[in-house]
Amino acid sequence: MKILILGAAGYLGQATVAYLRERGHEVTGVDSNVKDQWMTECAVEPLIRPDGPAYERRKRRKAQAVWHSTYAEVDAVVHYAEQASAPYSMRGAFEAFDTVNNNTQTTLDMILKVREANSDCHIVKLGTMGVYGTPGIPIREGWYDYPGGNMKKGERVRLPFPKQPGSLYHCTKAMDSDMLEFAARVWDLRVTDLHQGVVYGNQTDEMEETTFYYDHIFGTCLNRFITQAVTGMPLTVYGRGGQTRGWLNIRDTLRCVELALESPPDHGTYRVLNQFTETFSVLELAQRVADVSGATIEHIDNPRRESEDHYYHASNEGFRQLGLEPHVLTDDVLAQMIETVTRYRDRIDPACIMPAVKW
Amino acid sequence: MKILILGAAGYLGQATVAYLRERGHEVTGVDSNVKDQWMTECAVEPLIRPDGPAYERRKRRKAQAVWHSTYAEVDAVVHYAEQASAPYSMRGAFEAFDTVNNNTQTTLDMILKVREANSDCHIVKLGTMGVYGTPGIPIREGWYDYPGGNMKKGERVRLPFPKQPGSLYHCTKAMDSDMLEFAARVWDLRVTDLHQGVVYGNQTDEMEETTFYYDHIFGTCLNRFITQAVTGMPLTVYGRGGQTRGWLNIRDTLRCVELALESPPDHGTYRVLNQFTETFSVLELAQRVADVSGATIEHIDNPRRESEDHYYHASNEGFRQLGLEPHVLTDDVLAQMIETVTRYRDRIDPACIMPAVKW
Repeated sequence: MKILILGAAGYLGQATVAYLRERGHEVTGVDSNVKDQWMTECAVEPLIRPDGPAYERRKRRKAQAVWHSTYAEVDAVVHYAEQASAPYSMRGAFEAFDTVNNNTQTTLDMILKVREANSDCHIVKLGTMGVYGTPGIPIREGWYDYPGGNMKKGERVRLPFPKQPGSLYHCTKAMDSDMLEFAARVWDLRVTDLHQGVVYGNQTDEMEETTFYYDHIFGTCLNRFITQAVTGMPLTVYGRGGQTRGWLNIRDTLRCVELALESPPDHGTYRVLNQFTETFSVLELAQRVADVSGATIEHIDNPRRESEDHYYHASNEGFRQLGLEPHVLTDDVLAQMIETVTRYRDRIDPACIMPAVKW
Repeated sequence: MKILILGAAGYLGQATVAYLRERGHEVTGVDSNVKDQWMTECAVEPLIRPDGPAYERRKRRKAQAVWHSTYAEVDAVVHYAEQASAPYSMRGAFEAFDTVNNNTQTTLDMILKVREANSDCHIVKLGTMGVYGTPGIPIREGWYDYPGGNMKKGERVRLPFPKQPGSLYHCTKAMDSDMLEFAARVWDLRVTDLHQGVVYGNQTDEMEETTFYYDHIFGTCLNRFITQAVTGMPLTVYGRGGQTRGWLNIRDTLRCVELALESPPDHGTYRVLNQFTETFSVLELAQRVADVSGATIEHIDNPRRESEDHYYHASNEGFRQLGLEPHVLTDDVLAQMIETVTRYRDRIDPACIMPAVKW
């Protein structure tokens, strides 16, 4: 398969390029490297940053500078090229605009070029489980069946599942989904929207080490806990820690993207797949890391406005049906992550871990 | 009341400034006049364009150039400053980006400045009934009550009503709504989102004549039918004409905005009011104009991808409860519109009426 990867220099982009090339696909990766600017603005950098597989550098603001001719040649495009940090989007007006502009423009550009150059091209877009928020109803996959208005009793109308994004970043993902659903419905494009959970893991079959962020802007809570454990700090849980989310190993991200690529939807279909394998609360994750490392846990004021104790039940039926065999979060996986981070211990800046962005 | 109007030079903006000033409010109107550029690009102009009440001119791309200090002084902001034409947004890549950038940036800027400068300021945002699409279920006002996940049988969870926008322009209104709901929920702002139907009428108590567009980009189907009737052309209905939408007289737009301003929601509340008074299909409107004018009706290929025969039942309970007394579409109103357009008959360019943008 010929595949275009947008955002090929990132944590998931690098691993995806390597994974798909290893399996014989012809992969073109592009990246604007704009994340370097975002990190500079926030004065943070990843603990680990492998060179990764080769990709083409495109200028900032020309992330849209992927040509029609490139789209014309590929079977699918996988779109990772977004500002994906909730705290970054909430840091100030500049970052809010930057996030909204980057994400909506990159997605719109992709949609328009696929439509104009190659409407057979399968769009595989990375979304987020975060668009659903914590709705208090069972989370289905992108759609919901409503009682119809003029239909016989018991008949249903399928409409988009309600969205309640929890940050401006998450709002942009909702916007992307609206445009993608529109593009499939009105322009007959083939779209898979992967509403992904939080990804962990810093090793794949193809990459000995993947990019690792541990700071309060770009690092996940699990990465922060592991880094705190390595430095002997207490694990800082935001609020009561009851915030429950879907999680998955980066190896499952790669397999999910592959499964999506292998099963393109029909023209005119907007398919949503919830891409996670397990759910954990923040406190559960802290306890797991504490158990493996011996670290202590400390609750701090939650810098975010979010529910800390809520119903959470989400479906990932689509990928189960496609044959995904999940890698679960074992103590061995946690121990391996701790071991890797320990090798970079001298580079850790503890000042980057505590939250400085509030909303 | 001190009120800021964004988009004060437009069809509704002008009429709103005049209406609210007449009623003793202290109104600051601003506009970037960017619509002049949009009209130039499309080689169209309004048939009627009154000077209207005074407003402050702000540069393009600085539509965001409304200062914090301005927000600090007002009780409410009414936001009309959007690219509001579906065909314009679907005309090509330039116009698609222009629409998405203008609308998301203007709304985000307003939200951030209200939050930073004056979180008591009531945001009154013009949305559109078009975000709902034609869902096949009864359209409620922005919210829907879902069966809860872990609640006792019969209990419900209120979540956003599903959106299925029918153009890229309509997608931007969905994006705006997502950001506004987020801002109310997370930043405790006070937001009214007016999901407005299609507005008709070219006269208010304060303005002898309002702006009148009749072209295929910025004109409504009713304005095009009236213009066609005046020039002796057949009334061109897109497809079968069964497309049903909510409509209202511009006098009711003004009263609705006033009612919204007089009843600000509490902090943390995102209130949606469906702002229309009657529903008509496109064919019904053509028949009404034909009856009054003696024109004939012609069906042409629908340039849009949309349902031409569908269930449509929408609630406007909120404004009824606030005391709105609708002006309905009478033959007298149609005759008055025809009479006004007849006075400008020599300026009509028939070439602007037939659709040139398809999706």
